[in-house]
Amino acid sequence: MLNISRIKSAFGTVRKQSVSYVAIVSSCFLMVSPIQAQEHPNLILTKQGVKDIRANLGKVPVFDKALAAIQQEVDAEIALGIDTPIPVDYSGGYTHSRHKKNFFMAQKAGMLYQILQDDKYATYVKDMFFQYEAMYLDLPVHPKPRSYARGKLFWQCLNDSNWLVYMAQAYDTIYDFLSAEERKTLEDNLFRPFADFISTTNPQFYNRIHNHSTWGNAAVGMIGVAMNDEELIQRALYGLDDDGIEFGTKDDDGGFLKVEGQSAGFLANLEEPFSPEGYFTEGPYYQRYAMYPFLVFAVAMENNRPDMKVLQHKDDVLMKAVTALLNLSDQDGEFFPLNDGQKGMSYLAKELVTAVDMAYFYGGKDPSLLSIAGKQNTVLLDQTGLAVALGIQDGKATEFKKTSANYGDGPNGDQGGVAVVRADNLELVFKYSAQGLSHGHYDKLSFSLFENGDEVLQDYGLSRFVNIEKKGGGNYLKENKTWAKQTIAHNTLTLDETSHFKGKYEIGSQHHSDLHFYESSSDDIQIVSAKEVNAYSDSVLHRTMAVIKDEDFEKPFLLDLFKVTSKAKHQYDLPYYFMGQVLDTSFAFNTPKSLDVLGKENGYQHLYVEGKSNDLTEESAQFNWLNAGKYYTLTTATNKSDEIMFTRLGANDPQFNLRRDAGIMLRRNDKSTLFASVIEPHGSYSPVTEASLNANSHIESLEVLQNSDDYTAVKITTVKDKTLIFILANKDAEKSSSHKLKIEGKTYKWKGPYNLIR
Amino acid sequence: MLNISRIKSAFGTVRKQSVSYVAIVSSCFLMVSPIQAQEHPNLILTKQGVKDIRANLGKVPVFDKALAAIQQEVDAEIALGIDTPIPVDYSGGYTHSRHKKNFFMAQKAGMLYQILQDDKYATYVKDMFFQYEAMYLDLPVHPKPRSYARGKLFWQCLNDSNWLVYMAQAYDTIYDFLSAEERKTLEDNLFRPFADFISTTNPQFYNRIHNHSTWGNAAVGMIGVAMNDEELIQRALYGLDDDGIEFGTKDDDGGFLKVEGQSAGFLANLEEPFSPEGYFTEGPYYQRYAMYPFLVFAVAMENNRPDMKVLQHKDDVLMKAVTALLNLSDQDGEFFPLNDGQKGMSYLAKELVTAVDMAYFYGGKDPSLLSIAGKQNTVLLDQTGLAVALGIQDGKATEFKKTSANYGDGPNGDQGGVAVVRADNLELVFKYSAQGLSHGHYDKLSFSLFENGDEVLQDYGLSRFVNIEKKGGGNYLKENKTWAKQTIAHNTLTLDETSHFKGKYEIGSQHHSDLHFYESSSDDIQIVSAKEVNAYSDSVLHRTMAVIKDEDFEKPFLLDLFKVTSKAKHQYDLPYYFMGQVLDTSFAFNTPKSLDVLGKENGYQHLYVEGKSNDLTEESAQFNWLNAGKYYTLTTATNKSDEIMFTRLGANDPQFNLRRDAGIMLRRNDKSTLFASVIEPHGSYSPVTEASLNANSHIESLEVLQNSDDYTAVKITTVKDKTLIFILANKDAEKSSSHKLKIEGKTYKWKGPYNLIR
Repeated sequence: MLNISRIKSAFGTVRKQSVSYVAIVSSCFLMVSPIQAQEHPNLILTKQGVKDIRANLGKVPVFDKALAAIQQEVDAEIALGIDTPIPVDYSGGYTHSRHKKNFFMAQKAGMLYQILQDDKYATYVKDMFFQYEAMYLDLPVHPKPRSYARGKLFWQCLNDSNWLVYMAQAYDTIYDFLSAEERKTLEDNLFRPFADFISTTNPQFYNRIHNHSTWGNAAVGMIGVAMNDEELIQRALYGLDDDGIEFGTKDDDGGFLKVEGQSAGFLANLEEPFSPEGYFTEGPYYQRYAMYPFLVFAVAMENNRPDMKVLQHKDDVLMKAVTALLNLSDQDGEFFPLNDGQKGMSYLAKELVTAVDMAYFYGGKDPSLLSIAGKQNTVLLDQTGLAVALGIQDGKATEFKKTSANYGDGPNGDQGGVAVVRADNLELVFKYSAQGLSHGHYDKLSFSLFENGDEVLQDYGLSRFVNIEKKGGGNYLKENKTWAKQTIAHNTLTLDETSHFKGKYEIGSQHHSDLHFYESSSDDIQIVSAKEVNAYSDSVLHRTMAVIKDEDFEKPFLLDLFKVTSKAKHQYDLPYYFMGQVLDTSFAFNTPKSLDVLGKENGYQHLYVEGKSNDLTEESAQFNWLNAGKYYTLTTATNKSDEIMFTRLGANDPQFNLRRDAGIMLRRNDKSTLFASVIEPHGSYSPVTEASLNANSHIESLEVLQNSDDYTAVKITTVKDKTLIFILANKDAEKSSSHKLKIEGKTYKWKGPYNLIR
Repeated sequence: MLNISRIKSAFGTVRKQSVSYVAIVSSCFLMVSPIQAQEHPNLILTKQGVKDIRANLGKVPVFDKALAAIQQEVDAEIALGIDTPIPVDYSGGYTHSRHKKNFFMAQKAGMLYQILQDDKYATYVKDMFFQYEAMYLDLPVHPKPRSYARGKLFWQCLNDSNWLVYMAQAYDTIYDFLSAEERKTLEDNLFRPFADFISTTNPQFYNRIHNHSTWGNAAVGMIGVAMNDEELIQRALYGLDDDGIEFGTKDDDGGFLKVEGQSAGFLANLEEPFSPEGYFTEGPYYQRYAMYPFLVFAVAMENNRPDMKVLQHKDDVLMKAVTALLNLSDQDGEFFPLNDGQKGMSYLAKELVTAVDMAYFYGGKDPSLLSIAGKQNTVLLDQTGLAVALGIQDGKATEFKKTSANYGDGPNGDQGGVAVVRADNLELVFKYSAQGLSHGHYDKLSFSLFENGDEVLQDYGLSRFVNIEKKGGGNYLKENKTWAKQTIAHNTLTLDETSHFKGKYEIGSQHHSDLHFYESSSDDIQIVSAKEVNAYSDSVLHRTMAVIKDEDFEKPFLLDLFKVTSKAKHQYDLPYYFMGQVLDTSFAFNTPKSLDVLGKENGYQHLYVEGKSNDLTEESAQFNWLNAGKYYTLTTATNKSDEIMFTRLGANDPQFNLRRDAGIMLRRNDKSTLFASVIEPHGSYSPVTEASLNANSHIESLEVLQNSDDYTAVKITTVKDKTLIFILANKDAEKSSSHKLKIEGKTYKWKGPYNLIR
C-alpha cells in the first residue's frame, strides 16, 4: 500500500481568483470569459453526446464494436488491479509502460462509466487518481537523466504531459461521481501541481515552438478546462511570460529551445508549424503525432469556451490540417516519409481516428471523411465517433479523392513547400520546404515516387525502430544522423560529398527553397519547379519535375530536370534509390571483387559500390528494373566523362541498423550543368501467370538541347520515333510572359513558364 | 497468303487399321477397346456438359463471369485477324508468342462455339487450322538451335506439344462443324504429321521419363482421341518401342534422356514421378506445370475410354496429387519453393484452376476443393467448371484444411520424402527426398520455415526470371547452377565447402535420404527425422526437426538437431537464411571495412561476409530478428572454437541476377558433432500502433547433454527457469522399443524413438 501524504499546493488558494491572477502573469490574453458553472462531462465527451450514444446503443455496429473492444480491454485491466509503481525506467521498461497504460485505461474507463453508467468504471478511475495523489507531491524528478526536461512519472516531461492530457479527460468524466472534497484533494495535490511542474517548473520544455510544448500546453489547458481554472487555460493558450531561457540553448535532438521573436503557448504553436493550408513543417509522421493534443484541446475549448474560437483559429487550420495529412499518404494510406518518418505509419493510426472523427463532427460533416473512417473500421467513443458511425451506417460515405496539391511551408506558407503530383496510379512527392525543425533532413529538392502505393524511388525515412528496445532503446539511432538525415541518403544533388548547409541545423533552419512555379490544372502535364540558393555557398540548384501523359507511353512518366549553376567545378552526385531488382542497363559496367565504401563521411561512409560504368557515351543511358510486379526505366542524358554507380547501403554499420537498400547514382565533375532524366513506369509481371507485359522502355533517347541561364530544353525521342520537346523558362515563371527560343534552327514561341511540343 | 501444299502422310493409309498396326509397334499394351463411333465434343468438354452449361447460362455468376472474360478476349483476337508467322524466335519473341497465343485462342474459341453456338467461333478455329495446314508439311525444323529437341513452330518440341494439346481440344469442339473432307485434309497434313514429328521423329524428347515427354505423350494422345486414332493413343500410353537413344545421353538441363530399366509413355510418366500419395518428384512448382497434360489426357481417356481407367491409374494418384499439391502451399496459397521453383507461383495459377475443377468433378466432389476454387474466383468453361460454380453457388464449400503430412518420394514412396509440419500459424517444410530429376537441388535434409505465409527462413528458389527476356531470355541463369542448386544456398549442412554429391547429377540422382521416423499425431510435439548417408563419402548426416508447443512459449517453436558422424575432421557450415532485419545478438561480432567473398566455388563465391563472431563461449548463442511484424530468435549451442558469420548474397554477380539476401551461418571444425538449435517465433510489431509486444526470447539457454551413436539429448532452459529435456534414439525408431538412458545422474526410461521431459 502507498503511504498517502497531502501537501498543500502553493497555488491552491490562488485558483479561485484565477481571473485576476491571469491578468498579472499573462499580458497577451484575449477577452476573458467570466468563469461559468460547468457541466460534466464536457471536455471531449459531452453530456449531449452521452445522451445520443445511450439512445443508439446496440443499433450502430461500428460504434458497438469499438465499445465492446474497449470494454473488454478495461475489464481485463480492472481485473488485474491498479499499479502505480515508483518510476525508474526509460521507454519500454515496466514502470514507463505501466504509467502509460494507466492513463489510456483511465480515459477509456471514464468514457465507459458515462456510456454504460456502471460505477465500477468510475471507481476504478477514482482509485487510480487517489493512488497517484498519494505519491505525486513526494515524488522526486525521474531518476533517468537523458532528457533536457525530466518528468516525474516518466523520464521526460513530454510523457508526463501525455499523462495529463488523458487524465484530464478521465477526471472530467467522473467529476460528478466525486464529492467536492475529493475533487479539491485531487486538484490541490495532483492535478494543479502536475500542471505547474510541466510548465512553470520546466519552462525550457513548456515555452517552445515545438511538438513537446504543444503537448505541455494542451495538458495544462485540458486540466484547466476540466477544473474550470482560467489561469491554467490562459497559461495554456499563451505560455509563460518570463521563462528565463537563453537564446541558442538546444534540446537533445539539436533543436533550439528559444528563437528570437517567437511567442509561446498553444496558439503560437498552432501558428508556427502549420501553413495556412494545414501543412505541418515537421512532415506527416510527426503531424500525426502532434494532431492529437492540438485537436483535443481545441475541441475542449470549443465545447467549453466556443467564444474564444480556438478550434477555428488561423482560418480553420486544424480542420484543413486533417485533410492535408490524409492527402499526404499513398494509395495504401501510408504517410509519405518526409524527414524523420517511420515507414508504414498510416491513417489507420489511433491519432487519425481521433482526427477524422473530430474533423467530421466539428468541421462540417464532410462525407468523404467517412470513407477513411470506414477503412479505419473503428471510431471514438464520443459524439464525434457516434456521428461518424451513423454516417457510415446511413450510406453517406463518399470517396476521399486524393489530389495533386502544392503545400506551402511555414506559418504564412511562403517558406518553400511540398508538392504532391498524382497521375493515374503514380504519386510524386517533391520537397522544397523549410528545414522542418529538429526532425528535418538535409534534402532540398529531393523527391520520392510511388505507384499503386508501392515505393518506386524511396525516401529512406528515419533510422530508428520506434519502441523496439533492442535497437537503442527504441530511440533515434546514431545512423539517423550519419545516414538518414544526410543529403546523399536522398534522391537529390550532393556537391563535393558534403550535405546541404554542411548538415548543420543552425544554418539549415535559417533557409528554405523557393517555388519557381507549380501547375497541375492540365491532365496531360503537371509540373513543379523550385530553386535552392542557400544549400551551397556558390551554387544554385534548380529542379523541375514534370509528370507527363503521352499516347506513345503506357503510363504517365516523370521528367526530371536538375539544373545547377556554379562558376566553380564541383563533383555532383545524383542518386536514385530504386526499389527492386536490376534487370538491364544500356551501358557496360564493372563489378568489383570485394565491396568498398564510397566515401568517408556525410553518409558516404555507409555506401558500398557494387558496380561502376566503364564507358559512357554522349547518348542517353538506360537502366531498367522490376519492383512489385511492375517495370521501370530510368533514361538519363549522359556526358562521356560521367560515371554511373550502383550503390548498396550497409557499410560502417556495426549493429545492422541500416537496411541493405540499392541505389543508382550519376556522378559528374563540372561547373554549371543539367541532369536530365526520365523515370518511366511500364508494364507488369505476375509470378502467378508468369506473363511479362511491356517490359521495355518507350524511350529511344533523351537529349539536352539547351542549358542556358534563361532556358532549359530537352528532347525525348520515343521508340515510335516521335519527339517531345520540353522547354523551361528558368527565370520568368509568369503565366502571361511571352517567350521565343531558337533551337536546332527552329523558332519556338509560347506564353508561360514552359512549352511542351509533341 | 500462304501457299497450300498437300503431301500425303506416310501414316495416312495405315490409320484405319490402327489396331493391328499398334500390335506391331507396341508390345506392352492393354486389352484394346474396339474403335467406336465417337460423338463430339467429348475430349474435355462433353456433349452433356454443353447441354448443362447452356441450361444454366445467366444463372451462375462465377461461370458467367469466366465465360464473359473469355468471350471478350477471343472477340478481340478475332477482330485482330489470324496470324501464323514463319517461326523464328525463342520464347518472348513475336513468332513464339503469337503461335502460343493462337493455340490458347483456338481452344477457347472452340468452347465458345459449343457454348454460345455462334459459328463465328468455329470459323475462326477452322481458318486458323487451315493456315497451319497450309504451312506445316513444308516447315523446316525451327531455326533456333538451343534445344536438344527442336520443334517446328517453336524452338523446342515441348512448346509444339503444348500447341497440340490445346489444338486437339479445339479440333474436338469444331469436329462436327467441319466436313469429312476438311477433317481428312487437316488430319493428313497437320495433326498426324504433327504428332509424328514430336514422337517418332524426336524420340529423345518423346520417350523419356520427364515432364517434357508427358506433354509429348499427352499431345499425341489427345489428338489421337480426337481423331479416334487408336495407334496414336497406344503410342501416347506406352511410348515408342525402339527409340534408338543411348543410355547416358543428357538434355540441356543436364537430365538423362534414358535410364536403364525405365519404360516410356504416358502411363510410365505417371508411374515414375508421382509417389503413391501424389508427391511429384520435381517439386510443387513443376508439378503445377506438369499436372495439366496429365489431367487433360487422363480426362480425355475417361470421357472416351473409361474402360482403360487411365484417370484412376495407380490407385487414383492424379486425384491424390491435386490434394498433395494444394497442401504443399503456404497460408497464402503460394507453393513451397522446393528445387527449381519460382516464388509467388500459387494455386491461383490457371493450371490449378484446371486441376481443382477436374479433381472436384471426377474425384468425388470433395466440397473442400470448392473453397480453393472460390479463392481462384474463376472456373473452366466445361462441365467441371460448371459443377464447381454450382457447388459454390449452392454454399457447399467447406474449408480446405492444410495438414501436417509426410510425403514419400519416388514411384513407391520409398525414396526419401518431404515432410510438412504445421502448428498454429507455423509451417515447416523438411526435405529428405530423392534428387528430383534435372530440376533438383543438392540440399539433403534442408528446410524452410513460414509463419502466416511469410518466409521466416527461406529456400532461395531458382535463379531465373521466367519469361523476362531481359534476364537471359527468361531462361535459367548461370547463377542457378553456381548458386541456387548448391548446398550452401540452403538451410542445411555443407562439408568442406563442397556440395552434396559433389554437386553432380550423375551421383545425386542415384541416391535419396531415408526417413528415420515421422510423428505428427500429438498436438504438442510433431517430429520428422531423416538420415543421409551418401551426400559425403565418409560422413553420415542425421537431422531431426521437432515442432513443440509449451506453456512457457507464446508460439510453437522449432527444435533443430543436426547430427553428423564422421571419423575425419571437416569444416561444417550450417547456414540459416533468415528474412528481415537483424535486431540483436547475445555474442559480440566484428564487421569488416570492406566486404570480401566467403569462398571460391560451389556457391561460396556468391557470399560476402558482413560480420563474424569474435569470441563465442561454451554457452548457447542467441540471434534475434524482425520480419513482417514478427520477432524471431535463433538459439544455438556453441563451442568456444565455433564461428558465427553474417553473410550477404551478391558477390560475383556481374549482372545483378541474385537477390541481396541475408544469412547467419554456424561454422565448426570437428569430427562427429551435433548442431543443436531452436528457432523460436514470438511477439509482434506494428508500424501503425508502434506497439512492440513480446520481443524477447523465452529461452535462457540450450545445452547438449548427450551426443552418442545411440542417443542425442538436449536441454532447453526457459527464462522462467523451466527445463525441457529432449532425448532422441538415433538408431532405433520403433514405437515399441524400450529405452533407458542416464544423464546428469538421472535415469530416463521411455518407449519409442524420442522422449520429451518437461
